[in-house]
Amino acid sequence: MGPILSAIRGPADVKALPAEKLPALAAEIREEIVRTVGANGGHLASNLGVVELTIALLRVFDPPADSVLFDVSHQCYAWKLLTGRADRFCTLRRTNGLAGFQKRSESPCDAFGSGHAGNALSAALGLAAARDRLGGAGAVVAVVGDASIANGVSLEALNNVRETASRLLLVLNDNEMSIGRPTGALSRAFGRMLASPRYNRWKAAIEDYGVRRLRMGWMREHYHAFESRLKSLFTRRNNTIFEQLGLRYVGPVDGHDLPALEGAFRALKDSPVPVVLHVATQKGRGYAPAERDPEPWHGPAPFDPATGLPLKKPDGVSWSAVFGGELEKIAETDARVHAVVAGMAAGTGLSGFARTYPRRFRDVGICEEHQLTFAAGLAAGGLRPVAAVYATFFQRSVDAMVHDAALQGLPVVLALDRAGVVPGDGATHHGIFDIALLRPIPGVAVLAPRTPAELAAMLRFALSLPGPSAIRYPRGTAPDDRGTAAAAALPPVRLGRAVELSRTREKPEVAIWTLGPQDAWAAELAALLEARGAGSVHVDARFAKPVDAALLREEAAAGVRVVCTFEDAARTGGFGEGVRDAVSDLPAPPRVVSFGWPDAFVPHASSRDDLLAAFKLTPADAAAAVLAAL
Amino acid sequence: MGPILSAIRGPADVKALPAEKLPALAAEIREEIVRTVGANGGHLASNLGVVELTIALLRVFDPPADSVLFDVSHQCYAWKLLTGRADRFCTLRRTNGLAGFQKRSESPCDAFGSGHAGNALSAALGLAAARDRLGGAGAVVAVVGDASIANGVSLEALNNVRETASRLLLVLNDNEMSIGRPTGALSRAFGRMLASPRYNRWKAAIEDYGVRRLRMGWMREHYHAFESRLKSLFTRRNNTIFEQLGLRYVGPVDGHDLPALEGAFRALKDSPVPVVLHVATQKGRGYAPAERDPEPWHGPAPFDPATGLPLKKPDGVSWSAVFGGELEKIAETDARVHAVVAGMAAGTGLSGFARTYPRRFRDVGICEEHQLTFAAGLAAGGLRPVAAVYATFFQRSVDAMVHDAALQGLPVVLALDRAGVVPGDGATHHGIFDIALLRPIPGVAVLAPRTPAELAAMLRFALSLPGPSAIRYPRGTAPDDRGTAAAAALPPVRLGRAVELSRTREKPEVAIWTLGPQDAWAAELAALLEARGAGSVHVDARFAKPVDAALLREEAAAGVRVVCTFEDAARTGGFGEGVRDAVSDLPAPPRVVSFGWPDAFVPHASSRDDLLAAFKLTPADAAAAVLAAL
Repeated sequence: MGPILSAIRGPADVKALPAEKLPALAAEIREEIVRTVGANGGHLASNLGVVELTIALLRVFDPPADSVLFDVSHQCYAWKLLTGRADRFCTLRRTNGLAGFQKRSESPCDAFGSGHAGNALSAALGLAAARDRLGGAGAVVAVVGDASIANGVSLEALNNVRETASRLLLVLNDNEMSIGRPTGALSRAFGRMLASPRYNRWKAAIEDYGVRRLRMGWMREHYHAFESRLKSLFTRRNNTIFEQLGLRYVGPVDGHDLPALEGAFRALKDSPVPVVLHVATQKGRGYAPAERDPEPWHGPAPFDPATGLPLKKPDGVSWSAVFGGELEKIAETDARVHAVVAGMAAGTGLSGFARTYPRRFRDVGICEEHQLTFAAGLAAGGLRPVAAVYATFFQRSVDAMVHDAALQGLPVVLALDRAGVVPGDGATHHGIFDIALLRPIPGVAVLAPRTPAELAAMLRFALSLPGPSAIRYPRGTAPDDRGTAAAAALPPVRLGRAVELSRTREKPEVAIWTLGPQDAWAAELAALLEARGAGSVHVDARFAKPVDAALLREEAAAGVRVVCTFEDAARTGGFGEGVRDAVSDLPAPPRVVSFGWPDAFVPHASSRDDLLAAFKLTPADAAAAVLAAL
Repeated sequence: MGPILSAIRGPADVKALPAEKLPALAAEIREEIVRTVGANGGHLASNLGVVELTIALLRVFDPPADSVLFDVSHQCYAWKLLTGRADRFCTLRRTNGLAGFQKRSESPCDAFGSGHAGNALSAALGLAAARDRLGGAGAVVAVVGDASIANGVSLEALNNVRETASRLLLVLNDNEMSIGRPTGALSRAFGRMLASPRYNRWKAAIEDYGVRRLRMGWMREHYHAFESRLKSLFTRRNNTIFEQLGLRYVGPVDGHDLPALEGAFRALKDSPVPVVLHVATQKGRGYAPAERDPEPWHGPAPFDPATGLPLKKPDGVSWSAVFGGELEKIAETDARVHAVVAGMAAGTGLSGFARTYPRRFRDVGICEEHQLTFAAGLAAGGLRPVAAVYATFFQRSVDAMVHDAALQGLPVVLALDRAGVVPGDGATHHGIFDIALLRPIPGVAVLAPRTPAELAAMLRFALSLPGPSAIRYPRGTAPDDRGTAAAAALPPVRLGRAVELSRTREKPEVAIWTLGPQDAWAAELAALLEARGAGSVHVDARFAKPVDAALLREEAAAGVRVVCTFEDAARTGGFGEGVRDAVSDLPAPPRVVSFGWPDAFVPHASSRDDLLAAFKLTPADAAAAVLAAL
């Protein structure tokens, strides 16, 4: 770690630094971020873009007295480095280490946690309203990206700013791209603002008048008049979308110009009305490979900073790539197939689809609700939409699934990527509630493939259903079994039908029902049971809903006394509860021992194995429970 | 039914009527709506406001070739009367009768179903994109109220209009109030538009030039130039929020002026770019009591049209009133208590609270996501927020509960009004998925009071918890037991503790566990069981989560062989599954027979009893199942 950065213990040290040392501090922060993300994986391009912004925030604002919320907060690394966490930064995203997002329990400087886009402004309004009510004095700052601001909850909050809070600063961090390309009318409007000649004039004005005079103390008392005058000199009133919404708009400011940023924050800090400060930043700033092509550097796996090359070659094929590739194949012969994503074309494996079928692909921006309701509209109009989203973000569109897709029986296929735990990202990103949220929705088939070949078959199957369905698959890779004899030998996908894969004895007492790619876990459990004299059969459930009650019934009749379920999902409300329900009316129901994530938020960790061990979900734990139940 | 209305079999008949008969048709429609809502209950003020708008739509557009979507669609009564359903209109909201909302399965003229605010524009974009893709010619029209347009999914869709659809008409039905007072920057912006002098000039222009010439056929070919010229005459470009979002804005038009509306629709029908037509309507139009005070006439119970008085005096006290009154009492002694609603101050019983504590109350508009994330922000800021929402609308804010409240352990109290079936409104409004959606969320206590006194106690209890909680209670009334000796004799509310209420024998074989106000159901079941020789104990579960595993264990140890659960909620993922899970590891677990709404969408009906009978959830059904299990 660089000498300036390593001497910083907290916000006071940032303020105490002479201004001429700040560029060197920024360089050290960038170096530290690149090195740590290179070693641990994490978010890179977004963090490199806000280094100066974060320094400037900490030159002017005082956490925890002042609340600074980063939307999504994957761009909080510089914040962590400068608020007393530099010494632990090497533990980022590791088991028991620092989280990759703002987290209230980690530091009092993290005013509100985040991991999903769009909540910062809404939560900031709550903090500001509570401050106003309790007579506090602290500033509230929400740093929101140009993509996040278009999310529904952000827009709802934007419509409520004026009525809710007196003092609030919304920093619009405009990097002219979200994770993928920007979409929507708002991003066009921001583009017009950036292109306006005001940009450099505002910047020059801040430098000439603002910063110098603020340092002289004179402007401190006159900031308001100063800022209004500047404003009326350089902008027309009421010509931005923010002014239409009743907010004061200032900017744009160059987000890598430290004096300009610091001057703007000082000028606006005590504004008695809510202000939007428009800041233009560059993703990947300072790391050449990320500057050239920020999208793959959004959330890279561990890499060598010198070369930019990944440290490990992925083994197998990524589930996202299997999904995207298979959808492209299906689309060749079915012109009704359309894909809809919410800001995640590359992440969901659909970049190829988007290139091949640009007119059958839509990225609606980070708008999970609109994504699914729009897809339901496409289905009502006669198309076969596939809405691909990370499982954790589906939590945003539950009502769209209930009210717009399922209630009308519309054939929307929900592709849930990153289902199951996502160890490095942690609690905000684990896709473990999807099954429990989908099970109560009538008429939705919920599928989970065991292998890439099964995902391919399930996608075709789901697109043939008359009603809605969801297919969940994890982050990461799997051995590609497409085209193998083993895959060809498996029975075709049929609604609510599970598949027996193997058995250790002809008349087993235990049935191991797994959902998704859990073969290794099941094999280990079967071996442990066999070693203790208990025979077992391994079943690939294929469907979290409907559960194959007929096969369970058969197994029970054939002597199975314990069913052990395993799912990479929350246990409460999950697949295991469905299995227990399915056997509940048998004359002599087998015991159901269900394994899944417990009724607690699962933290981040270095690996899934760490989490399985921490929560007692290993095959050994299961073997002990099964044997006890026998 | 009036002679003109009764002769209308469908859209073609509306078009064939001479224009001079239209005012009489409007009057007949209003009379029919007032009579039917008076008899059946339903939505009144909103429907009376869009009579001319609906007639004009059907003069110009041709469903089902053209798709017309009403947002929320509680304002679709005139639409139903004019699209071939007048003869069945007397069955509105009754068992097997017409639904109170647009419903695809009811008529091909209903292009997309709705019941929750905000989905129309999003779904309309889907229909328009599908049309463009499939080479269709139909128009797509979304009629969205000024309150609904501020909902997150609407705003997300608004940001996507230009990129998604070529031809689309968004009718902004601006009645200057939602269900309660309008809130937010958007409604202020709409107010400025309405107040502009363009209003009457546009109207006059349409009348003078538009309609006459359109009838002459001349303008039909020149509509575009005509419209542009009008526009440039009477408006400045880019000065509305819609123009900032890249949409063409036309209006405002008087929503009760049939020729003006018809002229505007004809002029805009074939616009090659998406257009917003701003229409000003009056809620309750034509029915004096509703014109005077629209809010109580939003969704009245059956009433006498002549007097405006309700047909039945409510017996007991409404759950909403108990909630609102008790919260007001608690707020007297706890200054941290705040209430947040999403457009439903009166509906959630909080009008009194809002009057008494205006600075501790916020209506954020129909923004369920922002409602809950904002509340989480208030809690992070040191307040004790109570977010009151109809249980069905909570489906919108699941992620806010997971990601913003529960993950951070913030003490937000979610008050779920209208939990359980809401028979007249039907599938879109039944609040039956809340328990299944809440159970998987770690750390959320889910409570359901059996009586008003219990609601009062639970509200105090929930506000004392360090983390998040939800209290669910049904629509309607209950005998007020607050202050009675019976209520005082009950044990205090303790986390995850159920209460035994009665038993028919000292050593019962059956335990009846009910959640919420189900005493009559339990008593009937107990009597039926006793008559067949089976003793039972009745337990008030109080908590859907955590389930009182200790009491279940005790009961099992004391000889209970069957536990019968009953909840006014979806059975899949519900309280009953929690009970089954809680007993699953006992040495000899009792059978759990769970009763709740089945895995199907529950339609509207005249009464809850009709639905219980239709889905075999009566005490007699339960008795049969319990006896079979014994």
